Amino acid sequence: MSDAPSTLAGLIRPRPFAERHIGPDDDQVTLMLKALGLSSLEALMDDAVPSRIRAGALDLPPAASEAATARELREIAAENNPLVPMIGLGYHGTVTPPVVRRNVLEDPAWYTAYTPYQPEISQGRLEALLNFQTMVADLTGLPTSNASLLDEGTAAAEAMTLVRRANRKASGPFVVDADALPQTIAVVRTRAEAMGVEVVVADLTDGLPADLETVSGTLVQYPGASGRVLDPRPVVEQTHERGGLAVVAADLLALTLLESPGELGADVAVGSSQRFGVPLFYGGPHAGFMAVGQGLERHLPGRLVGVSVDAHGRPAYRLALQTREQHIRRDRATSNICTAQVLLAVVASMYAVHHGPDGLTAIARATHAQAVALAERLRDGGVEVVHDAFFDTVLARVPGRAGEVVAAAREAGVHVRHVDADHVGLSTSEVSDCDVLDRVLGAFGVAGGTADLAPAEALPAELRRETPFLTHEVFNTHRSETAMLRYLRRLSARDYALDRGMIPLGSCTMKLNATTEMEPVSLPGFADLHPFAPAEDARGYHRLIGQLESWLAVVTGYDEVSIQPNAGSQGELAGLLAIRGYHRANGDDQRTVCLIPSSAHGTNAASAVMAGMKVVVVKSSEDGSVDMDDLRAQCETHRDDLAAIMVTYPSTHGAYEDTISELCEVVHEAGGQVYVDGANLNALLGYAKPGEFGGDVSHLNLHKTFCIPHGGGGPGVGPVGVRAHLAPYLPSHPDHPVEARREGIGPISAAPYGSAGILPISWAYVRMMGAEGLTQATAVAVLAANYVASRLEDHFPVLYRGHQDHVAHECILDLRPLAKASGVTVDDVAKRLVDHGFHAPTMSFPVAGTLMVEPTESEDLDELDRFCEAMIAIRAEIARVEAGEWSPEESPLRGAPHTAASLLEGGERAYPAALAAYPAGPDPDKYWPPVGRIDQAYGDRNLQCSCPPLEAFE
Amino acid sequence: MSDAPSTLAGLIRPRPFAERHIGPDDDQVTLMLKALGLSSLEALMDDAVPSRIRAGALDLPPAASEAATARELREIAAENNPLVPMIGLGYHGTVTPPVVRRNVLEDPAWYTAYTPYQPEISQGRLEALLNFQTMVADLTGLPTSNASLLDEGTAAAEAMTLVRRANRKASGPFVVDADALPQTIAVVRTRAEAMGVEVVVADLTDGLPADLETVSGTLVQYPGASGRVLDPRPVVEQTHERGGLAVVAADLLALTLLESPGELGADVAVGSSQRFGVPLFYGGPHAGFMAVGQGLERHLPGRLVGVSVDAHGRPAYRLALQTREQHIRRDRATSNICTAQVLLAVVASMYAVHHGPDGLTAIARATHAQAVALAERLRDGGVEVVHDAFFDTVLARVPGRAGEVVAAAREAGVHVRHVDADHVGLSTSEVSDCDVLDRVLGAFGVAGGTADLAPAEALPAELRRETPFLTHEVFNTHRSETAMLRYLRRLSARDYALDRGMIPLGSCTMKLNATTEMEPVSLPGFADLHPFAPAEDARGYHRLIGQLESWLAVVTGYDEVSIQPNAGSQGELAGLLAIRGYHRANGDDQRTVCLIPSSAHGTNAASAVMAGMKVVVVKSSEDGSVDMDDLRAQCETHRDDLAAIMVTYPSTHGAYEDTISELCEVVHEAGGQVYVDGANLNALLGYAKPGEFGGDVSHLNLHKTFCIPHGGGGPGVGPVGVRAHLAPYLPSHPDHPVEARREGIGPISAAPYGSAGILPISWAYVRMMGAEGLTQATAVAVLAANYVASRLEDHFPVLYRGHQDHVAHECILDLRPLAKASGVTVDDVAKRLVDHGFHAPTMSFPVAGTLMVEPTESEDLDELDRFCEAMIAIRAEIARVEAGEWSPEESPLRGAPHTAASLLEGGERAYPAALAAYPAGPDPDKYWPPVGRIDQAYGDRNLQCSCPPLEAFE
Repeated sequence: MSDAPSTLAGLIRPRPFAERHIGPDDDQVTLMLKALGLSSLEALMDDAVPSRIRAGALDLPPAASEAATARELREIAAENNPLVPMIGLGYHGTVTPPVVRRNVLEDPAWYTAYTPYQPEISQGRLEALLNFQTMVADLTGLPTSNASLLDEGTAAAEAMTLVRRANRKASGPFVVDADALPQTIAVVRTRAEAMGVEVVVADLTDGLPADLETVSGTLVQYPGASGRVLDPRPVVEQTHERGGLAVVAADLLALTLLESPGELGADVAVGSSQRFGVPLFYGGPHAGFMAVGQGLERHLPGRLVGVSVDAHGRPAYRLALQTREQHIRRDRATSNICTAQVLLAVVASMYAVHHGPDGLTAIARATHAQAVALAERLRDGGVEVVHDAFFDTVLARVPGRAGEVVAAAREAGVHVRHVDADHVGLSTSEVSDCDVLDRVLGAFGVAGGTADLAPAEALPAELRRETPFLTHEVFNTHRSETAMLRYLRRLSARDYALDRGMIPLGSCTMKLNATTEMEPVSLPGFADLHPFAPAEDARGYHRLIGQLESWLAVVTGYDEVSIQPNAGSQGELAGLLAIRGYHRANGDDQRTVCLIPSSAHGTNAASAVMAGMKVVVVKSSEDGSVDMDDLRAQCETHRDDLAAIMVTYPSTHGAYEDTISELCEVVHEAGGQVYVDGANLNALLGYAKPGEFGGDVSHLNLHKTFCIPHGGGGPGVGPVGVRAHLAPYLPSHPDHPVEARREGIGPISAAPYGSAGILPISWAYVRMMGAEGLTQATAVAVLAANYVASRLEDHFPVLYRGHQDHVAHECILDLRPLAKASGVTVDDVAKRLVDHGFHAPTMSFPVAGTLMVEPTESEDLDELDRFCEAMIAIRAEIARVEAGEWSPEESPLRGAPHTAASLLEGGERAYPAALAAYPAGPDPDKYWPPVGRIDQAYGDRNLQCSCPPLEAFE
Repeated sequence: MSDAPSTLAGLIRPRPFAERHIGPDDDQVTLMLKALGLSSLEALMDDAVPSRIRAGALDLPPAASEAATARELREIAAENNPLVPMIGLGYHGTVTPPVVRRNVLEDPAWYTAYTPYQPEISQGRLEALLNFQTMVADLTGLPTSNASLLDEGTAAAEAMTLVRRANRKASGPFVVDADALPQTIAVVRTRAEAMGVEVVVADLTDGLPADLETVSGTLVQYPGASGRVLDPRPVVEQTHERGGLAVVAADLLALTLLESPGELGADVAVGSSQRFGVPLFYGGPHAGFMAVGQGLERHLPGRLVGVSVDAHGRPAYRLALQTREQHIRRDRATSNICTAQVLLAVVASMYAVHHGPDGLTAIARATHAQAVALAERLRDGGVEVVHDAFFDTVLARVPGRAGEVVAAAREAGVHVRHVDADHVGLSTSEVSDCDVLDRVLGAFGVAGGTADLAPAEALPAELRRETPFLTHEVFNTHRSETAMLRYLRRLSARDYALDRGMIPLGSCTMKLNATTEMEPVSLPGFADLHPFAPAEDARGYHRLIGQLESWLAVVTGYDEVSIQPNAGSQGELAGLLAIRGYHRANGDDQRTVCLIPSSAHGTNAASAVMAGMKVVVVKSSEDGSVDMDDLRAQCETHRDDLAAIMVTYPSTHGAYEDTISELCEVVHEAGGQVYVDGANLNALLGYAKPGEFGGDVSHLNLHKTFCIPHGGGGPGVGPVGVRAHLAPYLPSHPDHPVEARREGIGPISAAPYGSAGILPISWAYVRMMGAEGLTQATAVAVLAANYVASRLEDHFPVLYRGHQDHVAHECILDLRPLAKASGVTVDDVAKRLVDHGFHAPTMSFPVAGTLMVEPTESEDLDELDRFCEAMIAIRAEIARVEAGEWSPEESPLRGAPHTAASLLEGGERAYPAALAAYPAGPDPDKYWPPVGRIDQAYGDRNLQCSCPPLEAFE
């Protein structure tokens, strides 16, 4: 707070949003500084951040108030013009059930949750995801579905790599249906090109091209982008005959009427669950999916929820087969997928729970009958309809008139698909109705009057679905809004999210997701726009995206930013592809070595492999920093084939390393590019810019530093920023509404702007914080980490410290000596924190046997102290184990987390129930985990990835 | 579900909302009918509802889908034009903190809660209300505040009656400041006229009129409606000297800068907390308040939250001094206030919690400085400013030009006050800023440029506030949004609301409050409009209100409906005043006897007294119905002075009485009017219409039958419907924007349309249900009650049954025989239901020692069965007490509700902890009450009605 303002304008300025975003107030900051023996935040940052990398102030617009920002975003949303969406191409109008919108999409208990790595406190969203998996498995007719992928395009690309690794003997190209969604083809090409996979796009009307004697796999779109419903069986059979695996990209709604891919022989199904109640969001976020046949489960990319048992023998959910995952497999990974689309998968699953099989079928029938009516009236009016069999999409042939028809439809309030000069595509959905159909017919100059038509069908009889789906009770119970509301409430009450307390996850930056940032996501102007709507109807989005990209460039010091990548992993891939494109343009095709420090996050290595690079590990010094001698040696060795180094700054050890500038110089000198992983940008904003201190490219995680909520494990947004020489190699998109961005290295995401629908969140954050607020947030985040390190270092060794002996924005607590002395494990500590009402810090990353704590700037001193006191109390319990008072097995640490039921059922215990439940004293507001400690191994041995029957819980 | 539709339009119709609103689906309805031995819903209703009163189908528009209704409401909202509100008069622009909007106003955990009569499961909102009381007490400088009143106007009217009953020796009129808010004066006059109280409206500039030797009380507006700040002390002193009590109607924001009424000697303070973050809502709902000096606590109308202790000796909140309340005092009551404005009081209190004393003061300073700047610039520009001392309102004198200035301001986007032809009022607020001021100044033709003015003050030095306020920790802790979010979550998690399970409250109709009904409340078009905005800027509201009034007339069979009364109690008063007006117009001034059956709700009697009537009780027969013989006798006795009968139909015993038609005839024949209390309208809609079967007037409770959520104890809406002969005596309003409704019997609420802001909820309900849906809902509600009665009658006697031995929409379970045999009390059963995860039914109304259950149509069969099974399990526990296995004191019934802490702390208990907690088996989703059984008497003996210090909890 400054002194009394001298002008009225100064006096009436509302309380800055930064004061709401930043947890500790001025008094608390002073107390924390005092505890560290520091005089000011500036003194701390002068100490902590190496002076060589310090940057100047951020050139951003002045901070706006919450009210003004909300107003501005309403205006921007109003500049979008979401007409009735009939463009199709995998994006369809849908009605989000209001009870789901309000109680999932708009409910902090759901959207502020973290990825369910701590399953005992994530049972609600794990159940919702298991519902999602069951729904996808049922509809696709394949036994195992994952818990979502980023979008349909990347799901198809993941399927391409899956069929290759699952089927190593296979040779030949991956064949893609020419009637696949154009963006799917483009994303698959981008991926394939980098990995050296041959892709053939072919018309599959008459089966696979005869000249392909062997294929690694095929992808059939079912129904096709043109609307045509092709029987996939011939292609599936030929694929199997030629040694490959068959992928079907399917529409979930159509699958209520069309026989399932699994039943038709497919090995893999992919697609998007968007039209199950998830707003169009101008392209995303939406939950893609992948389901596979028996024997392929362990090859599934992404996350997989499975059923296991807890310490009391009761069924409990958790992530299954985690050792498959990229962050563990590192350079052996074949996918870099990390973030899923949990929040959207939850919405889609709840849409199915609320509608049930009958309701979904009714929506599908209505959608289909509308398409049939359109075709009938078009034919009546003399317009040629290209296909006889279709589900929801009618392809009309209007030689030379397509542009005119599309324009007339737009005038009539409908966005239809401009296929080419001669063809118009019309896709019906839950939001079209007879009035809309009549207006569209009017655009063709054809008579409407569809309301009175008798409903008819145009699905091939041999593909009519016979197999049942969604028979589980959960899809047949919550039909009334009251029942649905309570089901949602019951699930969310099982979970621990930021609305309950701190989630001190190192490297994940679980900060405030402010309401003013979140509210605009629900505005129809942002929620209801189709990604391929013409640019003139998306002015609001273009303004917002342009500003956000420019602000992100300002804060990172890069010249250009693309927000297309819809997850950090995709940002990494995009960044590495930019480097690859640059080297190739320079004729340096041989530059394919990617140096990665041993402490790096596993995703880095996985991304490098996917970008066609060869990973070479650089050693870490004992203090956790990059071993500069080894770096120099490796650069020397790879002087001719060095492509890049991927380095996280501050390091994954949570320290500002002094050597970063030198590191950049050494790599540049050897002809390499420097990729600075932006995961830890929350320690830099306002103090250092990767684009200025030596980085050539970075991805940012908007879901970390820029306040997009974690959503229980997605959505994320991973923009990539580059210096000018890499800008030509940023992601492009064939359906980008702006001409200049249609050519290039191809798309990294299915939609031109990735997860456009949630960009208002980050936009609002920057708009409300301004340069000063962002800078202060960084300093307070660093202060908080140093405060925690300082309070805890007498109890747990703090593993690494950087410049001037400060940690950056996180700190690593070393439990190894204690574990060795006492037998108490990191897991025990993590689970005991649940009894204290905390989410555990990051476990065993980057160093096994440690906990990494990132408090962020949003936690106030009371909560930081509560956390420190919990850790100190846990240390005292470990001491009692060390002293022999308890064995590790009989200690409350091993018994944690304690459920109310297990404590009330009595039984022998070496400690009082009250100590188990209330280690810090009685608390009427205590969060009770619904299950006890979960047996991970049991679930992996007995893999079950769809809803268990209710009897299992009895 | 009907058969396959024959047209496309028929096929694509979305699932009717009625299927979402009504809990049991067709299969469940069939099962329930079967259990009752009935063939169809129609058969049930034919049986249950006396044929004499059966009405024809409802003539309503066809049911619209949820999506279409949402769209229509967005269009209606867009027809309102909420400009910057500078009209003042007690309604001011304010910024609802988004975190409070999303997590209170838009959160079912808050808005679906019931009145906190079961305090153990209401600790969250009771704490919020205690914060409200502390806030009001602190700011007004008076020790005891109630937990809200309906609005400022009725609060003033309540103050008028309070000073008379607290001070019975006093004589003389009640003197009202001529500078009081015009609507306050009008509401006070309406009330006073009915009760025969003399009111004098006087200019208090120079103190009380000299000719008034004695006064019962005075009301000073502080600051006045004109903006002027008058020192209340001279009037307060004169009032005391002349034997009266002094009321100050104060602005809470101004009180951060102005010395408090208590400090200045006032006995009572009233006002509105609207500008503490509650949207304007075109007039309501907002929380009015009343605070009183020592010794007046027990005279306070409305609800009062106090601190007591629970069975474990820990502090716990509950409603204090309930014996004061109208529904208990009946015809000895001096207020009929029942519903409070809990949801809005919570919002206002959270605004104070979030801003704290410093933040509120800063907002007040900015508001004040803007007004000073306006005054300065106006004077600079040659415009006369009437008052020298003001807080936020500047009265400008512009002879003959007011209309022109107001119009110019409107053109500039600002609503200002058109005081009269020569004066314009300008009120600044949290939402005005220098740009707005400059635009307003432009409307006067005066130069702006306010931004650069030095901030100045225009408050009388002798009134500058010296006393501290909001010093309690709760107002100084939750400053960051993270902290605020968690505080809100913590409080709501303590409470049981409809989002957790059934609330089977007899006569309260706790049905679904659907999201589609609730969402529009947040639209700026509805939320941000000032109640005195010109009609041309409120077209949306007028369309919505007109339709809603006409629909309510259709469903009740009345000729005209007024939605002005903002609570059921006010609807009753309005209805009785209409009857009174009618008799007087007929020269029947002597018709003042109001017959009230002994089983009636206490509010009926209280309302009759307030309407200046004399209550005569009519006996009930043994079956609970009105004793027709006694009725005939009373009508005969009062043939000359009979004004009316107030009767509830179906009766408060939950039965359709056969005698209703005859009753109406008898009363009419004796010259009386029939008032049918609409509390139980949920048993009639679509089957019978009070306006057709003999009623002359009814009030409805939109917060019962028409889905306005109970909000934890308000808001309510209590429209009054009348037959044509009473229509001229409906409420009017001096500031009604429609000419025709400005004259009449005067206003019953401060705002012309009462709680306009929540009317979209009921509008949406009718719009989406249509005639068929409403009718079906009634039948299912009756079915559910009969099903529960049937399942439980072998365990608990069902006390009354009506026509054909059916209950109506609720049933009364008689516990008296059991209580007598076992010593187990109704309280024990109610609290034990909490352990089962239920809110208790209505206790001891209308018959002491019983429970009244109203399941409503929204509860599905699973939940009805769960409730029945809980009651049966409780009966079995009572049997164990009867069998001597437990004494009542040592039974789990008396121990209920059980907190986790009390069970875990061990101690002796005659039953296992697991039985206490999980009477129906282990439940990981169990709702845990935060406190044990609360000692009501302790709290009343040791009255504490503001926040206790934190140490109290240690």
